[in-house]
Amino acid sequence: MAIRVAVDAMGGDDAPGAVIEGTLRAVRAARGTMEVVLYGPKERLRQELRGATAEGLRIVDAPEVIEMGDMPVAAVRSKPRSSVLVGLSEHKQGRTDAFISAGNTGATVAASLFSLGRLPGVVRPAMPTCYPTVKGVCLVLDIGSNMDSKAEHLLQFARLGAAYCRTLLAVDEPTVGLLSVGEEPAKGNELVKAAHALFSHAPDLRFVGNIEGRDILHHGADVVVCDGFIGNVVLKLGESIATAIPDMVRQELRCMDVSAEVAHVMEDVFSKVAQRFNSEQYGGGVPLLGVDGTVFIMHGRSSASAIGRCIRMASQAATLGMRAALESALRTHVTTP
Amino acid sequence: MAIRVAVDAMGGDDAPGAVIEGTLRAVRAARGTMEVVLYGPKERLRQELRGATAEGLRIVDAPEVIEMGDMPVAAVRSKPRSSVLVGLSEHKQGRTDAFISAGNTGATVAASLFSLGRLPGVVRPAMPTCYPTVKGVCLVLDIGSNMDSKAEHLLQFARLGAAYCRTLLAVDEPTVGLLSVGEEPAKGNELVKAAHALFSHAPDLRFVGNIEGRDILHHGADVVVCDGFIGNVVLKLGESIATAIPDMVRQELRCMDVSAEVAHVMEDVFSKVAQRFNSEQYGGGVPLLGVDGTVFIMHGRSSASAIGRCIRMASQAATLGMRAALESALRTHVTTP
Repeated sequence: MAIRVAVDAMGGDDAPGAVIEGTLRAVRAARGTMEVVLYGPKERLRQELRGATAEGLRIVDAPEVIEMGDMPVAAVRSKPRSSVLVGLSEHKQGRTDAFISAGNTGATVAASLFSLGRLPGVVRPAMPTCYPTVKGVCLVLDIGSNMDSKAEHLLQFARLGAAYCRTLLAVDEPTVGLLSVGEEPAKGNELVKAAHALFSHAPDLRFVGNIEGRDILHHGADVVVCDGFIGNVVLKLGESIATAIPDMVRQELRCMDVSAEVAHVMEDVFSKVAQRFNSEQYGGGVPLLGVDGTVFIMHGRSSASAIGRCIRMASQAATLGMRAALESALRTHVTTP
Repeated sequence: MAIRVAVDAMGGDDAPGAVIEGTLRAVRAARGTMEVVLYGPKERLRQELRGATAEGLRIVDAPEVIEMGDMPVAAVRSKPRSSVLVGLSEHKQGRTDAFISAGNTGATVAASLFSLGRLPGVVRPAMPTCYPTVKGVCLVLDIGSNMDSKAEHLLQFARLGAAYCRTLLAVDEPTVGLLSVGEEPAKGNELVKAAHALFSHAPDLRFVGNIEGRDILHHGADVVVCDGFIGNVVLKLGESIATAIPDMVRQELRCMDVSAEVAHVMEDVFSKVAQRFNSEQYGGGVPLLGVDGTVFIMHGRSSASAIGRCIRMASQAATLGMRAALESALRTHVTTP
């Protein structure tokens, strides 16, 4: 049976235009192996499609729209017929295999928790990002769905991240590092010191201990666990390397006497290295790990190509059984309070 | 009168050899405008000097040594005749104008608090680093002397950082940004949200609001304020850019067909950009802001050149009246509890 991906047609700065364009591309490229359901105001979406069709594309009417500026919890309560809530509700009922949105992140997280619930043993879901390293990529999580985490939340992030790494990144026995300010267990803030003790007693984790800021790019671990505040800073600092370093290189070049050919090759090499720091490169969206479903969240300013990539990634996650893999990774560690 | 810099001769992985070598270079280059006092076991230092002398170089005997692995507070209590404690005690008495050490950082911070005390209004001293940006450098603080800070500590870091930026980096009216996960005041963890409110009501700060991880390299503010845990991660991630990016560039080059000449120019440009991320570049050490004195702390693996640069920087800080500038920046804001 074809994998069915639910798409919030109204989410994102350029919605529904960019979403529809990206969806059409993904559906056509899949040649019948994938179904995509677009959620949004039916007439509006029909107009945007301007008669374009594709095998496997469906529209489900959801007349309300959650705006980027809406307060998450209030929006979830007051807009039950929004594309996000209708889409997640149908996902919960098993009518689709994955759900993606480039809309209001807070609202999508709140709606996912409300509509899907959590996997057993999860208190807070987390979002990971693929971070470029000298050896490929590592997974850094959480990158911002949780501020002010507790040590037991970090332990769940570690389990969710390791399971994701095994399932989606095909790393057999991923190493797990805890982001801190020194290798020694006594180094770090109170949160990290408490988490170190928990990680050390988790036999299911291949814990390599604390890793430092410098170890991320040098691939100190396959999975780097941190609080969502610091993960978000690390993510955005990384993204800015792609734009700032070429600027710095150009400044240096101006002081040197290089040929046009050399400058050209340089720009080329740089755009390739910069691409590694472009998170869209790694699927166009990030999964919301820990909810009882398969949800991917995209940046508000996602392009049509990013939407297309995210649809493919969500479809792959569903095919590979991401939700079940996460559930199984957590199952043996659920303790009844 | 010549500026007098006190140097902990026994601090650092290669002490006293590297310290003595760096000191000799700095003293000789100063041609009589600077005095340097080396603290350490007199006979040991004499042997290391092997008869070398320089105008303005003095030795003061301090027979005890605080080792890198010593517990800070215990070391301060049990080794009153160590180079760190004798040096700081003489600095407190006004016999020197600045003190530098590449030894056990925790012990130097503890000894500074014990021997010098804090400037009025300071609860916790902070350490800043100069971070490369597309426009030059910004000052990021704290980079690790404080874990688990409170909002009022961040406010002090902002004042200390702005005063340092004015005095040592010659930025007239430095802008101050608070590192967070979004521009809006409501974004961030509890610490940052509370700090945002305090910063907004500080008329002496040129506060530009929250800045994000991506804004550091793009010079979102002259002074970037954060907790020491996150500052340390940001610092080390930045340092690793210097080593990881050239690796990534080499990987890309291997897949391309470039001439030896182009590859050579590329390495050259890269080593220049990488140098910007080498924190030794910006003085070889970082000041401990907020103690009642002029203290610079260096990395344990500081080379002789780093030691020399730090001596010059400490001498410059003393000449420019760093301590008085910091005291004055804090003075109007001291509240009696």
